Amino acid sequence: MGNDKQLIIGLFGFGVVGEGLYRILNQTPTLNASIKKVCIKNPNKKRNAPASLFTTNADEILNDPEINVVVEVINETDAAFRIVSTALRNGKDAVSANKKMIATYLPELLTIQQETGRSLLYEASACASIPIIRNLEEYYDNDLLQGLTAIVNGSTNYILTKMFDEQLGFKDALLQAQQLGFAEADPSLDIEGWDALYKWIILLLHAYGIVAKPEDILFTGIHQIHNNDAVVGREKQYEIRLIAQAKKLKTGKIAAFVLPQFVKPNEHLRFVKNEYNGTVLESSFSDKQFFYGKGAGSFPTASAVLSDLSALRYDYHYEHKKLRYQKPAELTDDFYLKVYVSFDDWNYIEKNDFLWIEEWHAENERKYLVGVIHAERLKNKTWWRENGNSLILTPDAIVEDVDIRNLKKKSLELAGVQLG
Amino acid sequence: MGNDKQLIIGLFGFGVVGEGLYRILNQTPTLNASIKKVCIKNPNKKRNAPASLFTTNADEILNDPEINVVVEVINETDAAFRIVSTALRNGKDAVSANKKMIATYLPELLTIQQETGRSLLYEASACASIPIIRNLEEYYDNDLLQGLTAIVNGSTNYILTKMFDEQLGFKDALLQAQQLGFAEADPSLDIEGWDALYKWIILLLHAYGIVAKPEDILFTGIHQIHNNDAVVGREKQYEIRLIAQAKKLKTGKIAAFVLPQFVKPNEHLRFVKNEYNGTVLESSFSDKQFFYGKGAGSFPTASAVLSDLSALRYDYHYEHKKLRYQKPAELTDDFYLKVYVSFDDWNYIEKNDFLWIEEWHAENERKYLVGVIHAERLKNKTWWRENGNSLILTPDAIVEDVDIRNLKKKSLELAGVQLG
Repeated sequence: MGNDKQLIIGLFGFGVVGEGLYRILNQTPTLNASIKKVCIKNPNKKRNAPASLFTTNADEILNDPEINVVVEVINETDAAFRIVSTALRNGKDAVSANKKMIATYLPELLTIQQETGRSLLYEASACASIPIIRNLEEYYDNDLLQGLTAIVNGSTNYILTKMFDEQLGFKDALLQAQQLGFAEADPSLDIEGWDALYKWIILLLHAYGIVAKPEDILFTGIHQIHNNDAVVGREKQYEIRLIAQAKKLKTGKIAAFVLPQFVKPNEHLRFVKNEYNGTVLESSFSDKQFFYGKGAGSFPTASAVLSDLSALRYDYHYEHKKLRYQKPAELTDDFYLKVYVSFDDWNYIEKNDFLWIEEWHAENERKYLVGVIHAERLKNKTWWRENGNSLILTPDAIVEDVDIRNLKKKSLELAGVQLG
Repeated sequence: MGNDKQLIIGLFGFGVVGEGLYRILNQTPTLNASIKKVCIKNPNKKRNAPASLFTTNADEILNDPEINVVVEVINETDAAFRIVSTALRNGKDAVSANKKMIATYLPELLTIQQETGRSLLYEASACASIPIIRNLEEYYDNDLLQGLTAIVNGSTNYILTKMFDEQLGFKDALLQAQQLGFAEADPSLDIEGWDALYKWIILLLHAYGIVAKPEDILFTGIHQIHNNDAVVGREKQYEIRLIAQAKKLKTGKIAAFVLPQFVKPNEHLRFVKNEYNGTVLESSFSDKQFFYGKGAGSFPTASAVLSDLSALRYDYHYEHKKLRYQKPAELTDDFYLKVYVSFDDWNYIEKNDFLWIEEWHAENERKYLVGVIHAERLKNKTWWRENGNSLILTPDAIVEDVDIRNLKKKSLELAGVQLG
């Protein structure tokens, strides 16, 4: 304890995050960490650092016994996994900001950490500067966590904010996000929900000891949201957020998904606007806790990497207590969701998938319904993602106790009257 | 690492927090912690637990070698210090929720922790369920923390919320807080700012490695706030909060104080209403982070104690890195504050204490001014706490760069015209 070790870093990637980290370390010599070598793909690109720092040969870092930490901030998934796993096997600690790599290779990374005893930290991979992983791991480390809801993707949140605060259409809002650098030229990873999904897989591990695959999680993004959904929301004082959630059901199993949702005024996540992120944790005895901060950008991401480096100086590693020492929680799709679906043509709505349709508005060109549907059915069906349909969760969407007989009856009555 | 040890707890105090903890532990056997004995003062009071659990003899706990953790949730300061220090010296770890005891005996407690190598944790002592101490200690453990502002007292925040949201007068709001159990029958500890001061002393240690005494910190509470201050605030869309702050000045020294402040719309701390607490951390590279949750109450406090117990299972202790391994920061009063002062009689205002008076409103019965004053002068003078005067910080109150000659001139001009 208290051994404040000198970190000699091998860095992979010198994009905005890598360069941000390089600058921060140069500005704060007290951190007792220095970058010995930076591995890049393109040696001809102009860099704001001495040429002697760079190499294109990964082995120069991975086989250098003096380098005790490898930091990986590249975009490629498989290459990043090779770098991190080799670093750990070569006796180095590793820091990564690569959510897709971590989410994709979660089981393998857990095994390698256990086999090598080395530390892999990745606070930057979810919510960037918000210390959510470390808090889930260390502070919410018992089985009292009842639920977790979060806005984990800044690009989509920026777009949704503009749709509500400035009443921009989806396409204009996306364009603005791209111009400001909050969204990529190819925004599909963000707006289709993949980025949020990867982050959610990482947080599920640290919240509940769950090792999930992408195909285990019901998710979508915001690309299907229709401008009229914002109009409908505004009438009820709702805004829309892309929300990742996990909730401990009465059975003890965990419901987890990433879907757009209507959010009521005064909810914690309404405070989260523009490119920011926020997480609400609910535990048995302490009500709701809300963590809020910048979820993306070079400096916030570099700052989270820095904090991992700082922890490595004191030999910190995730202990994965919930996975290893407790009975890990189990994912389930056996619950119901109350959803809003808007559409142009009701022939594309599979009404029989609903347990109960509660509202039906066909008076305008853009129609919508509100109904209750089983989560597993939603996950297995595709109609709600197609033909211009848009699905948004209602507030308090999870329905656990359903008296199916009563609801079926009610649903048939309603459907009979209104659809018949 | 990973040794999940069994905790045998000796508990001091069985008030709302003590009993809350007892109930939580009974409900969650997975925590691997059990209360062996509870020391109480009054053996005749009826308790919701088996009589065999209780003792009035502290030594039964402190000298029991089987008990490895002492949890102290009593109200007395000196008695709590004796309990905690004896426990540590007897080879036990200790958990305390006693902010006054910890703030008062900070130097002694640091010495005893170092001498005994035992762990003293007190997450519950500041912001209850918000994991702020642990985050300052572990996550914001480098020297990049630029500032910290917080609402750390739920009672006063509840009163201020009622003054603004329901336009209650101070006395009515206080009465309501007392009726709801958010304020003590003797509310002076809360409303005069002492409770916030103690918490701030604790957070200053973990934020900056500063060991401060109560007399080192400029502070007041909300008891001087005049109903008309709320009226003035509302005109500018401001609300009032009792805010504890620390800021790294350009000199590298730390300005720290606890004072009421006008808060602009959209500020993070505006989100904090009623009995809640909130903390905003600003670091060099990650912008502002906001932590929000319940800052008081039996279960939130017990929940923080629980999380300390959970940490003790893995032999966690505060390393006080900023104090021991880094150069601790230094407190300073050498900065200026822009303050609002309201008053009935301007004969009680020491106008010469101001470097510059910026506004002067004498048109109504309750008058006010806005001026810039040196922090050290404010700390040493008492006029602003007396004779019905009320002092509230303006938003962005800290003034670092003052061209004294220009300001003196401007001040004299203004004062000459308006006071002359």
